[in-house]
Amino acid sequence: MAILYHHPLCPHSRFIRLVGTEMGLEPELVEERSWERRQDFMLLNPAGTTPVLIEGDGAVVPGATIIAEYLDETRGAALGDRRLMPADASERVEVRRLVDWFNGKFFDEVSGYLVTEKIYRRFMPTDAGGGPPDMNAIRAARTNVRHHLKYIGYLSATRNWLAGDRMTTADLAAAAHMSCVDYLGDVPWTEDENAKLWYARVKSRPAFRALLADRIPGMAPSAHYADLDF
Amino acid sequence: MAILYHHPLCPHSRFIRLVGTEMGLEPELVEERSWERRQDFMLLNPAGTTPVLIEGDGAVVPGATIIAEYLDETRGAALGDRRLMPADASERVEVRRLVDWFNGKFFDEVSGYLVTEKIYRRFMPTDAGGGPPDMNAIRAARTNVRHHLKYIGYLSATRNWLAGDRMTTADLAAAAHMSCVDYLGDVPWTEDENAKLWYARVKSRPAFRALLADRIPGMAPSAHYADLDF
Repeated sequence: MAILYHHPLCPHSRFIRLVGTEMGLEPELVEERSWERRQDFMLLNPAGTTPVLIEGDGAVVPGATIIAEYLDETRGAALGDRRLMPADASERVEVRRLVDWFNGKFFDEVSGYLVTEKIYRRFMPTDAGGGPPDMNAIRAARTNVRHHLKYIGYLSATRNWLAGDRMTTADLAAAAHMSCVDYLGDVPWTEDENAKLWYARVKSRPAFRALLADRIPGMAPSAHYADLDF
Repeated sequence: MAILYHHPLCPHSRFIRLVGTEMGLEPELVEERSWERRQDFMLLNPAGTTPVLIEGDGAVVPGATIIAEYLDETRGAALGDRRLMPADASERVEVRRLVDWFNGKFFDEVSGYLVTEKIYRRFMPTDAGGGPPDMNAIRAARTNVRHHLKYIGYLSATRNWLAGDRMTTADLAAAAHMSCVDYLGDVPWTEDENAKLWYARVKSRPAFRALLADRIPGMAPSAHYADLDF
């Protein structure tokens, strides 16, 4: 059986949980606190980041974007016309651009700050950066998320899904990151109706159910977090 | 004819120049100063980063990792057994892990600091961050590069090339980033003989010649920069 080393509020891990479930892969989930830099985990992924997928045969696949490419290559064709990566090279460029946008830029500007400051710091020892959240980082994230929300609204209004007329890994990457921000109550949904409608569509997919059931001890999600009709 | 928007000392641009040349693609090079956030360039790549490839038919391919995947998909097969991406899914994982390592982690810890502080800041207007370099950032990069040099030495000694027994995009990504650091004289080559031997091998490829001829006005390269027998 496959294993996924993840953290419940790690947006990159959530992306792979979504991609995996859409493909019928239900790995055993093992929680990893990447800030502990556990020796055995560092051997699986020298970069020290979640998620890492271990295949049933022991093959190690580290890193969200890399796992998504790997899953498409090994299991994507079986999805037929529900495949999460388009066949056309130019369309694949747009999907990859947006996956990179959310896994990279959005994480650096929004979800990384919020998850680190509001969640991870509660569990870190003081000498590893634990303690109260840095409010400047949280404020920056709350400002930045508004621009990204508009961009999602613009893309979904002009294209139906973020990268084109079908749902792709780009939608799952975006929704995974947004779901973490939404857990923390930091998405100003009222500012963009199109973005909200897009998120409601992704959120209603069966693959999303497990994410909506996640709970972090001592930190309840926002009131509408698991509400499909928010 | 294809166009590549790039900057001569942008490590991500250099990576694509290497990959392109290995594939026989010789795009027209157009220098872009990404920090100017030029409107027409932002339309090509909303992330605002170099490189961006424009195909002869006008198709836009933004971002180093994405361009490399695209070039492999559209032109890779023609290389036969010199193809830069392996056919096996697990081997592709390792190549992508290392491309991500250098384009992401190495850039964040080493090449990004050095190029920004020593080069870009000289050309930026003061209100966009121009001015004298931040010596703390440079010192951090010089410390970090030593760990990466050891990692390159370890990989090349145990595998011949970084990701396995053949040269792949992983070697070109690593060498592109290292070449920028080497231009600035900040690679402590004497600390790892294996890494040095690996770099000498990549550097001697014909694709590397154009990079070794690059000169930034007012900033000469290190004495051994273009020396194949350094």
